Amino acid sequence: MKILVLGGDGYLGWPTSLFLSVKGYEIYIIDDFSKRKIELEEGVIPLESLLPLQERIKVWEKSTGRAIGIHVGSLTNHRFIYAALEEIQPDVIVHFAEQPSAPYSMKGRSQAVYTQSNNVIGTLNLLFAMRSYCPNAHLVKLGTLGEYGTPNIDIEEGYIKIQHKGREDLLPFPKQPFSFYHLSKVHDSNNIMFACRVWGLRATDLNQGVVYGIDTAETRMDPDLKTSFHYDSIFGTALNRFVAQLVCGVPLTVYGSGRQERGIINLIDTMQCIQLAIENPASRGECRIFNQFTESHSILGLAKKVLSVGKNMGINGTVEHIRNPRVEQEDHYYNPVHTKLVELGLEPHFLSEKIIEGMINRVTNSREAINTETIRPKIAWTMEKNRLTIAR
Amino acid sequence: MKILVLGGDGYLGWPTSLFLSVKGYEIYIIDDFSKRKIELEEGVIPLESLLPLQERIKVWEKSTGRAIGIHVGSLTNHRFIYAALEEIQPDVIVHFAEQPSAPYSMKGRSQAVYTQSNNVIGTLNLLFAMRSYCPNAHLVKLGTLGEYGTPNIDIEEGYIKIQHKGREDLLPFPKQPFSFYHLSKVHDSNNIMFACRVWGLRATDLNQGVVYGIDTAETRMDPDLKTSFHYDSIFGTALNRFVAQLVCGVPLTVYGSGRQERGIINLIDTMQCIQLAIENPASRGECRIFNQFTESHSILGLAKKVLSVGKNMGINGTVEHIRNPRVEQEDHYYNPVHTKLVELGLEPHFLSEKIIEGMINRVTNSREAINTETIRPKIAWTMEKNRLTIAR
Repeated sequence: MKILVLGGDGYLGWPTSLFLSVKGYEIYIIDDFSKRKIELEEGVIPLESLLPLQERIKVWEKSTGRAIGIHVGSLTNHRFIYAALEEIQPDVIVHFAEQPSAPYSMKGRSQAVYTQSNNVIGTLNLLFAMRSYCPNAHLVKLGTLGEYGTPNIDIEEGYIKIQHKGREDLLPFPKQPFSFYHLSKVHDSNNIMFACRVWGLRATDLNQGVVYGIDTAETRMDPDLKTSFHYDSIFGTALNRFVAQLVCGVPLTVYGSGRQERGIINLIDTMQCIQLAIENPASRGECRIFNQFTESHSILGLAKKVLSVGKNMGINGTVEHIRNPRVEQEDHYYNPVHTKLVELGLEPHFLSEKIIEGMINRVTNSREAINTETIRPKIAWTMEKNRLTIAR
Repeated sequence: MKILVLGGDGYLGWPTSLFLSVKGYEIYIIDDFSKRKIELEEGVIPLESLLPLQERIKVWEKSTGRAIGIHVGSLTNHRFIYAALEEIQPDVIVHFAEQPSAPYSMKGRSQAVYTQSNNVIGTLNLLFAMRSYCPNAHLVKLGTLGEYGTPNIDIEEGYIKIQHKGREDLLPFPKQPFSFYHLSKVHDSNNIMFACRVWGLRATDLNQGVVYGIDTAETRMDPDLKTSFHYDSIFGTALNRFVAQLVCGVPLTVYGSGRQERGIINLIDTMQCIQLAIENPASRGECRIFNQFTESHSILGLAKKVLSVGKNMGINGTVEHIRNPRVEQEDHYYNPVHTKLVELGLEPHFLSEKIIEGMINRVTNSREAINTETIRPKIAWTMEKNRLTIAR
């Protein structure tokens, strides 16, 4: 079975490619390195430097005897993605190939437009290419729990049965996304749902929580197989960032009260979920939506967990509540349903002291490389707070 | 009060500009003539030829003594729209400036991508320009009833109170749009709602039904003030098309059974609704949604009404049910709520025999100009039906 991983150079795309390669799937990667370009724009780098993708797959082939194909190009170039699908004829397409940073998308017009153009038009090109060259392939698309926002009702998995004035229908769950990035994912979801309905494509839209973690069994096989780990305010996710802050002795910056709750998931469970989606594909015409996370925590709760584990290891830290750069509810109901992946067999790795301890040790090895200046947020959501940073 | 009409060259934008000009508002038009370019691509022209916009405003000024400003350019050019808003400083922005054809958006990849890029990125640029130069202006945005699709429950005006597992919230109404064009409007709505929530912009999103009609009091003032009337399968709306078919003696083409129901609205009521939205603006941070139509009919019902009026006038016609080129439910519940504009004072002009008779007479004057070859649909929604027409 041929699996094409779009965005296979990234934090999740790379370990997913290795994980599926080990399972015996024939893996092809597409990437245009656009996230690396944003790193240059924003002056941020991953904690540890990475070999070029082309070199990493050589290391992988040497370690395991398994080949991975690479096509370098952008989904926004439709000729490129048409030619790639025609040539590869994938059975499954795992789609990570989107601008992934909410703060970046809120920096200014140019970044918001780039995010929505790149993500929405790229995915639209992909849908048309699938329609032409592999209409039976299963699209496994990475979305985000942040598409839903924080409604005052349980968040169902993509669809909700609504009873209204004596009638009833199963309808797409209403979305109240957090940023132009999250909006781009909502636009994608709507386009994909339509393509399944009208053309009979098959898709699984994975509305994923905040991912944490550094290594997988595969990336640990060789130091040159590691994946990109970010702790900065652009690409760093909450828990990863807190661990870096603890390790380098600066306060753990909690946005606002930190009472905002978020679903989180371990990097290794992301791999598992994607495998489960692949092995239990959607039917023709079906657009399934799974909420892909394993547990919910408040942001402050995550910071406190990191502090507590650090203390047991002899590393003292503090929390600093900073003015919330985002516009989001801090006190809200939060109960997203997440049973579909468990029903398919997901065995969650819950956040434990041992896992946090492992992350702290891992980051400590590269402590000298941390640039603390990139950790505090510089981009605010509202007009008043970042008037000066709004670029045309 | 300064009103900027985006897309002021179009079927609705032009008569709206005149209507508001007569009311004493200071009117500025922006257009990039992109719809006219699509007419050239598709080989369709309005029933009656129009003077260039620049000439029409001269006729208007001569007739009424009222000036209208013109800025020629595209919202997708952010420098253009930033400069225009900085210069004009509008109090109200009425936004019609989008690719308006569902069939065109379904023709192939290039048209789908054009539609979503033009509409979504254009509107995103506009939102950022408003944020920078006129954050207090009221955005009156034309959306469509087709954003909702045909759910099995009453369609509320933009938001629905959902009771779920013992909890309750007022949430955006779930959308199941009909085409890539309708999807572009959903993407816009989501982006606008976000901009209101996060930046405090004010907006009214008018989810409009199918518009019919040819003239308004203002366009009748001089033959050179008429608006664009389309009867073709790309831009022609159902009732307008049926009238043209009757007049030129070809069967009225009903897609499928014709039992699909749609909300419709008279061109002159569109003007009225926009005026009401302008005179009763949204608050800062508010994104209101009004369902802008006055009555619902089945497509077959509309065709039969046209036949019946024609018969009384001595013009016999027939209905031909053709294979539905669209993917849509033909038997469905349909009850969109539409009370908000009525509460503001809308006095509907319901579809009457007299109105249809007037349209038939009006089209008969230009009967010789009708190109019947452009009326039957050539673009299908599904893979099988238009495989040959799918362009890269």
